[in-house]
Amino acid sequence: MATLAMQSLGCEVAALNTVHFSNHTGYGQFKGTKSSAQEITTLYDGLRQSYLTDFDVLLTGYAPSATAVEAVGAIAMDLKKRASKRPGSFFWVLDPVMGDQGRIYVNEDVVPAYKSLVSHADLILPNQFETELLSGIKITSLQNLADAVTVIHRTYNVPHVIVTSVQLPAPLSSSASSVISFSTADSSSVSQDARQNNTLAVFGSTMRSDRSARLFKLEVPRLDCFFSGTGDMFGALMVGRLREAVFQDAPALRETASWISPDNISATELPLAKATEKVLASMHLVLEKTMIARNEELARYQSEDDNPDSEFAQLSDEERKVAVEKRARLRTSKAAEVRLVRNVDLLKHPVVKFRAKEWNQ
Amino acid sequence: MATLAMQSLGCEVAALNTVHFSNHTGYGQFKGTKSSAQEITTLYDGLRQSYLTDFDVLLTGYAPSATAVEAVGAIAMDLKKRASKRPGSFFWVLDPVMGDQGRIYVNEDVVPAYKSLVSHADLILPNQFETELLSGIKITSLQNLADAVTVIHRTYNVPHVIVTSVQLPAPLSSSASSVISFSTADSSSVSQDARQNNTLAVFGSTMRSDRSARLFKLEVPRLDCFFSGTGDMFGALMVGRLREAVFQDAPALRETASWISPDNISATELPLAKATEKVLASMHLVLEKTMIARNEELARYQSEDDNPDSEFAQLSDEERKVAVEKRARLRTSKAAEVRLVRNVDLLKHPVVKFRAKEWNQ
Repeated sequence: MATLAMQSLGCEVAALNTVHFSNHTGYGQFKGTKSSAQEITTLYDGLRQSYLTDFDVLLTGYAPSATAVEAVGAIAMDLKKRASKRPGSFFWVLDPVMGDQGRIYVNEDVVPAYKSLVSHADLILPNQFETELLSGIKITSLQNLADAVTVIHRTYNVPHVIVTSVQLPAPLSSSASSVISFSTADSSSVSQDARQNNTLAVFGSTMRSDRSARLFKLEVPRLDCFFSGTGDMFGALMVGRLREAVFQDAPALRETASWISPDNISATELPLAKATEKVLASMHLVLEKTMIARNEELARYQSEDDNPDSEFAQLSDEERKVAVEKRARLRTSKAAEVRLVRNVDLLKHPVVKFRAKEWNQ
Repeated sequence: MATLAMQSLGCEVAALNTVHFSNHTGYGQFKGTKSSAQEITTLYDGLRQSYLTDFDVLLTGYAPSATAVEAVGAIAMDLKKRASKRPGSFFWVLDPVMGDQGRIYVNEDVVPAYKSLVSHADLILPNQFETELLSGIKITSLQNLADAVTVIHRTYNVPHVIVTSVQLPAPLSSSASSVISFSTADSSSVSQDARQNNTLAVFGSTMRSDRSARLFKLEVPRLDCFFSGTGDMFGALMVGRLREAVFQDAPALRETASWISPDNISATELPLAKATEKVLASMHLVLEKTMIARNEELARYQSEDDNPDSEFAQLSDEERKVAVEKRARLRTSKAAEVRLVRNVDLLKHPVVKFRAKEWNQ
């Protein structure tokens, strides 16, 4: 997902896989292996010994253990060091994948590993729960959310933050269209509350020189379907679009460390906000197409299943019922696979309909 | 290389990596791991248990051991079996990667492993040396080459063959523009003879019902540079283009086992020939662009190297000389990396200038 999304925006990608799985974990079952910290480090050493580390941007996502997170962090630190004489020449986008929906789905020791890395990143992409873990603030309102982003800027000195998945209990929400977002977790964890909301929103901020938050909010209509990999898609498109926003529209930032806009730039004029507009426009269009294709595929499965089926012929009635249900669940996951390949043009040429709005708490 | 090339032609790709290397082997050094046969098998089992094996085409390339080749073969056999009730619904493109330029660069036991698999493939893509290994015929002339292709059709019953890398000693060649081709081997093995030729050619054949060869030849101007990964690029584009040629231009073949054209179709009318025309057109255009970018990059390196260099400051003169030469060699490899991402449109929209010609021995 991430590799093709970046390639579609013209990035040459060196993909260092931290897991080698047969399928995404949204299926509820998978086979394969996880990369060890040593394997990750060795691959980077291989790049280094052949002068292949002249990267402009690093995007890091899920790593399967605390030592793997540390290995990824060491790569980031080496790349930063190499670029230290040329401010703005290297940028690290870190997605601190730890959990979602109030639940940590990595080993507990991954959390402190990320906490010690975040201060070296240029942009982080936590969801609501990860924002809570990093800030120590339980997010129960939009005011809380702003506080959490401010705390993250101040605690970690991380200049850019996008909170990609906010989901507030309806009664505490400050507006009728309370905000929720896409998620990298499995569909079972999407609560009924979330499903009742009808917009998808993200919050972003580039800190000012006093490390205060400069927040914008962007909402797009929500699609009633769980898609897997949208977090990776968001991060990957952000890599291409943020770089583009800086290079095309704010060239002075190219040689500014971490591409931090001057204080007089408003939230909605930020390259981060401009990039987010394009990223969410592309994602919304691709997910709309995916949803249509998914519904067609599910309808096709349904008519197939009305026919006699030999696959489970040797099972007892009870076993067959279980097997048929499991197959239906797996097919539903497959039907919702994001249709990226056939919609690459929508990644390249989004039509921006939804604009970032300044968000004063 | 293969994944993006197939995706650019609209294929949804499940990539099962048989090696995890930091870089291609053309650099002369790399780090990383090889997949074991068990890891390959396990990943496929993961796909199978979640109903994710409904593939239309399988493309197989380099596998790092005889047991890995066997594991790949077992996957192919399972996919064939699943599709056996619907002839034409599954197609296996096998690149029998064993060696090049008279040299085997895999373990010796990989050769018999491939020999026992080839008879199950629909299309194989051997280079000249691999054609010799499979046919047992030393290719010293174009007549010999035709014999070797015929022997492969007859021995293995493999319906489609494309010989991707033919290089005849100049004195024995039947024409002034003796044929050579791109190669997947490292640049050091490209002989001086090859560099003196100025065309790049491939030979293809779809067997007739009597298993005789139906040969075509296609030549494009040769670029004076070694590019790595062009064999994978050829195979990947062939997957997309052959399927397109069958589905669009010869729909009756869609339900014909192995998409074998009737005997009355001439060599140049074959879907295999039409596909090869588009594949080589795309490749020629992309490699032309790559060569321009490579020359610019090498010129840039040259001017950098004229400046004082602190990187090797602590080395002795002799050590520095060795280090500078090694760096130059590695940079030359990097400069020639195929510019695929930025030239995806040339993969999608090739301009066919060079046509396949019937080739009667």
